[in-house]
Amino acid sequence: MQVNGKEYTSIWQNESDGSIQVIDQRWLPFELKTFNLKNYQDAYYAIKEMVVRGAPLIGVTAAYGVYLAAREDTSKSNILKAASHIKSARPTAVNLESVVNEMTSATEGLNSEIPTSLLERANHIRQREIDNCKAIGENGLPLIKEIYKVKHKKQVNILTHCNAGWLACVDYGTALAPLYMASKENINIHVWVDETRPRNQGARLTAWELSQAGIPHTVIPDNTGGLLMRNQQVDLVIVGSDRTTKDGDVVNKIGTYLKALAAFDNGIPFYVALPLSSFDTNIHASKIPIEQRNENEVRFVEGWKDTKVDSVRIITDDSPVANFGFDITPARLVTALITEKGICKPKKDEILKLFS
Amino acid sequence: MQVNGKEYTSIWQNESDGSIQVIDQRWLPFELKTFNLKNYQDAYYAIKEMVVRGAPLIGVTAAYGVYLAAREDTSKSNILKAASHIKSARPTAVNLESVVNEMTSATEGLNSEIPTSLLERANHIRQREIDNCKAIGENGLPLIKEIYKVKHKKQVNILTHCNAGWLACVDYGTALAPLYMASKENINIHVWVDETRPRNQGARLTAWELSQAGIPHTVIPDNTGGLLMRNQQVDLVIVGSDRTTKDGDVVNKIGTYLKALAAFDNGIPFYVALPLSSFDTNIHASKIPIEQRNENEVRFVEGWKDTKVDSVRIITDDSPVANFGFDITPARLVTALITEKGICKPKKDEILKLFS
Repeated sequence: MQVNGKEYTSIWQNESDGSIQVIDQRWLPFELKTFNLKNYQDAYYAIKEMVVRGAPLIGVTAAYGVYLAAREDTSKSNILKAASHIKSARPTAVNLESVVNEMTSATEGLNSEIPTSLLERANHIRQREIDNCKAIGENGLPLIKEIYKVKHKKQVNILTHCNAGWLACVDYGTALAPLYMASKENINIHVWVDETRPRNQGARLTAWELSQAGIPHTVIPDNTGGLLMRNQQVDLVIVGSDRTTKDGDVVNKIGTYLKALAAFDNGIPFYVALPLSSFDTNIHASKIPIEQRNENEVRFVEGWKDTKVDSVRIITDDSPVANFGFDITPARLVTALITEKGICKPKKDEILKLFS
Repeated sequence: MQVNGKEYTSIWQNESDGSIQVIDQRWLPFELKTFNLKNYQDAYYAIKEMVVRGAPLIGVTAAYGVYLAAREDTSKSNILKAASHIKSARPTAVNLESVVNEMTSATEGLNSEIPTSLLERANHIRQREIDNCKAIGENGLPLIKEIYKVKHKKQVNILTHCNAGWLACVDYGTALAPLYMASKENINIHVWVDETRPRNQGARLTAWELSQAGIPHTVIPDNTGGLLMRNQQVDLVIVGSDRTTKDGDVVNKIGTYLKALAAFDNGIPFYVALPLSSFDTNIHASKIPIEQRNENEVRFVEGWKDTKVDSVRIITDDSPVANFGFDITPARLVTALITEKGICKPKKDEILKLFS
């Protein structure tokens, strides 16, 4: 995607030294900085500290992390140690585990050619995510087009939660991909952007992405979506997912479930856009680990003050704080899943068909 | 209620000069400051700028505002001008309009004795809110006691949104009154406190109230309640109201509707605690004006930095922002209303019976 007129993705390899470069998402929207991954510990840090985030990008970063480990030491034991360490960075997004497993499997039967082979595999995974997101955009576009027709070319209002844009992937995004396609086709859309407490990825990242793309949008506190939906000011909701089960239960950023309830209560379609890589067909939703993050993410709010990133405290130490990263939206509240293989109902037989 | 061992209410008259003193809620929880109302313009400012907030306290502050106007100039025209100005400070809470009307009606047939009479009336309104909140607490207490019995004296988990404590009233509170009573009777409660974006009245005011009262609590982002309810970590939800219709539709702080949906979806009782003064039996919910406040309340987050109140920007000027103050929870999602006259279903016949 374009940033100030220049083409960007969220992760790429430096031609000079072969290290991996990512956009450092902790500074957006105030500064566009990059962060350099020289070894697998850097990849672990980048995932853990949310230099990068979003299930697809976590997966791609992890893939390069395994490659970086092999570049330093091609021994299987080193690669497995690195793989295990990287996998432990965050528990909820399924892409992290599955991509790391794909990378370690790729070393089987290889020896000295391991680094080259792993780089090829990581590049392949990166390109796969780009292609998948593009296909998700194309598959989701008709849903917006249809509403546009019904509304006689008046504005289509779309609500999204957190950031499932190109910053969460490599390019295009999942939830935002159909919006970018719609905008390109001159469909008049407007996006309600949930600020997405506690880390405000909506206010900071989604709003920035949409500003860069020139797409009309309005940032709202997470509490606002219910009122807007009751007032028929939302035509559809579209979000991403960190892990979705074969039954169609969707784990995504905390607060997604509340928006799904409001959409259902008001007869508004609620779509989840995700690549097949974010499905986990081997687990029941209740068994998916819900990450609890540092309470200081809630206790302090980070923002911009006098031209630098700073934070203020909103909760005293007299009050305990809980910081759950994700919630589960049951399939019954989901209108459909938008994948690179097409759109399907959140039902086991339809989901499993995508994988055949 | 006690603050650092000293008895406080949220509003009182200074014995020395007859002016009105309120706790300045803009500084909590970091500093306990008071704000002095010398004339009706000060009362208008205090309501408008949320020095005071909460439907009952807005009403009491407005009552004293009309008294302060009469103290300066007893002419009917001056009192009516002041009344009209004060009423315009905020649109949603019904107490503001009804209390001001009660005050101006009280001047009928009076002349030189107006200020004394209006002071008596304002004191009466203040005391009435105290008595009502105490009765709400007593009427709500059995609901908590019952769950405590069913849970065999394990902890009762209560979720609340925004601040409907004594700071929102004069003493005791509405939603928090039953909790204070339960705590006094040594019932083991724990409160999930929604931080309540954008002004964080939960994180700042409710958490402070509960800390002062020694009641165990945990502050959570507004997005969190759905997950907790799905996990059966909430036994009941209790909130206040800025205006409730005769059909039992509840206007309250933005985000309340989303919590009501989650409670309903998980079979968790959802109670609304309010005095009769917060009912409006003359309006349909869809006609209640929903206040839109300054977008800077969302764009900047206020907190504490290096021992002073400060703020950081979380949204750039490239992105528009919307800031709706309230939403509407339809009666079908409300288990019961807790009032000073008892508990009733959110149904027209039961509600109108309260007023007879």
